[in-house]
Amino acid sequence: MDEHYMRIALELAKKGCGWTNPNPMVGAVIVKDNQIISKGYHEKYGEYHAERNAILYCMESMKGGTMYVTLEPCCHYGKTPPCTEAIIKNGIKKVVIGSVDPNPAVAGGGIKILREHNIEVVTGVLEKECLELNHVFFHYIKTKLPYVVMKYAMTLDGKIATYTGESKWITGEKARNHVHKSRNHYSGIMVGINTVINDDPLLTCRLSNGKNPIRIICDSKLQIPLESKIVQSANRLETYIATGSTDNGKIKTLESFGCKVLIIPLKNGHIDLRELMKRIGEEGIDSILLEGGGTLNYAALTEGIVNRVQAYVAPKIFGGIMAISPVGGRGVEFPNDCINLELINQERFDQDLLLEYIVKR
Amino acid sequence: MDEHYMRIALELAKKGCGWTNPNPMVGAVIVKDNQIISKGYHEKYGEYHAERNAILYCMESMKGGTMYVTLEPCCHYGKTPPCTEAIIKNGIKKVVIGSVDPNPAVAGGGIKILREHNIEVVTGVLEKECLELNHVFFHYIKTKLPYVVMKYAMTLDGKIATYTGESKWITGEKARNHVHKSRNHYSGIMVGINTVINDDPLLTCRLSNGKNPIRIICDSKLQIPLESKIVQSANRLETYIATGSTDNGKIKTLESFGCKVLIIPLKNGHIDLRELMKRIGEEGIDSILLEGGGTLNYAALTEGIVNRVQAYVAPKIFGGIMAISPVGGRGVEFPNDCINLELINQERFDQDLLLEYIVKR
Repeated sequence: MDEHYMRIALELAKKGCGWTNPNPMVGAVIVKDNQIISKGYHEKYGEYHAERNAILYCMESMKGGTMYVTLEPCCHYGKTPPCTEAIIKNGIKKVVIGSVDPNPAVAGGGIKILREHNIEVVTGVLEKECLELNHVFFHYIKTKLPYVVMKYAMTLDGKIATYTGESKWITGEKARNHVHKSRNHYSGIMVGINTVINDDPLLTCRLSNGKNPIRIICDSKLQIPLESKIVQSANRLETYIATGSTDNGKIKTLESFGCKVLIIPLKNGHIDLRELMKRIGEEGIDSILLEGGGTLNYAALTEGIVNRVQAYVAPKIFGGIMAISPVGGRGVEFPNDCINLELINQERFDQDLLLEYIVKR
Repeated sequence: MDEHYMRIALELAKKGCGWTNPNPMVGAVIVKDNQIISKGYHEKYGEYHAERNAILYCMESMKGGTMYVTLEPCCHYGKTPPCTEAIIKNGIKKVVIGSVDPNPAVAGGGIKILREHNIEVVTGVLEKECLELNHVFFHYIKTKLPYVVMKYAMTLDGKIATYTGESKWITGEKARNHVHKSRNHYSGIMVGINTVINDDPLLTCRLSNGKNPIRIICDSKLQIPLESKIVQSANRLETYIATGSTDNGKIKTLESFGCKVLIIPLKNGHIDLRELMKRIGEEGIDSILLEGGGTLNYAALTEGIVNRVQAYVAPKIFGGIMAISPVGGRGVEFPNDCINLELINQERFDQDLLLEYIVKR
């Protein structure tokens, strides 16, 4: 039964997707006499935690009940008082935890306090799922660097466009909708200047209740056109332009449109991506969906800033010796020099497949 | 229970893999009083059918029993007498059939005869699996053309080699072993002359009990080196060289090494692949594993001779704007002009994925 209730807590946690960053998504369920008597989740950054919401919404005595919570309850004063306090005060006698909090301010401290108050604590229930749910949070809190997800859509023969450069569309509607879920899930979205020049995208999330990602443009020479949709919408949609240029005139103009310009040192004529990630992390952006072209993708992989790859594979073949593939650049010389991945997830959207991998170091 | 016994019959049928062509693989189980009293399968072309083997091996009375058979029993005299006769004679009272035989000499005739003898017939049990088992047979008997399976292994970024041309290895050992299963499953294996010149392969099946596929080389200008492994082993391994050349001297030499040379008209300077398939079909070769390079693969797809695509996807990224991808040639101009596929199967070999698709017309 532990897994059953934890799964409900996990589903609750996911409701906060897109709204809790840089906090984790957390869900909680309170059970008494084999009945769920309350549920809650962390709804939005700065607001109550899942445990406290579940307690708030509970209409009966929790005394002797069990709480199922996807993440170790906090024991420190942050934006809200510690959850352990509320758990203890309400007479909950057992707490079942999905994953331990890696936040240095918690890290087992919540469990310790609960046990000191004679509350039974069980850990590690659906741990893998609970860790996966907050992979961004766990990464960011430990490294202060954004979690970078490289995303692309290709045909079964590895093409992201026909030889004429046409790419609308590779995948079907369901897969494309799922991309917008990712744009909601991750805080930022990053593309290269060529994508802006060629496609003039808006890079928003088109889900009805979705949150737009913060836009980050890698633009070493500050070539971004002022008439591009990105610049024109920068006063209402948060936008960073990362550049090595010190053209103060253009920088001022871009800033007047609402863009934030980050001056980043160049490395071989390109933005130093590791330095950019450090700066982006300092700005409080915990995750990035990288929708780059082949050149940016290869640079990002070789610089070691990519944590995960999401490849959508369409049931199509384009052919074409001149048609481009998702990762370009120079490439590795020998198979053994490759970037190694680990398959962690597969999903199917009609006939399209999403293959999800972790980048191994 | 029907599905349970049919699944056993299916597994039996698969034991004939590689040995029954151009006959189908068939398995049969005889059940009486909820007990399996005999099993059989079609072991080898020219020998007994599955039904007759099951009957032969049965040590007790089959009277009142039920036979489960993956394919409709035959009712005609071929290399062996009709199976319907043996079923009727042994008092079997019910026959459960997976798929109806599309062979014009059977095509429902077996079912009709059984019913005329008051035997209950049930059809369509695990029909999809039974059809898939003999997709080669069903195609060949209807079209007289070989069933062509395009196979390649690529990285997650769609590369079949690094930019330096290195491709050993893309996939891991388990996936590579599975390729040898395919080489055992399909009668022929086809590559282009460039593969012979660059890799000098032997194109055999390396399974301990496997059958070597018949080798077919597309060699429009008859460039194949006499010292290549293919030519040197042609007297012990069946080999076809398809060419547009009429260099009688070289043809005679190749024939003296044991090669069979097929003179095929050229189309835009290349072997006319449709014509080649007709000739290969006439030679009794019912299926081909196409392990071509990008150029041959694209020609085969656009000529419409490919029935299935098997793509192995490795958890690796090579990158490289000059690294080649599995399908080359000119390519389609617009996404809507693509070759459309239908996903039918997925398998995992450690971290490698096999994605299997049918080519849609």
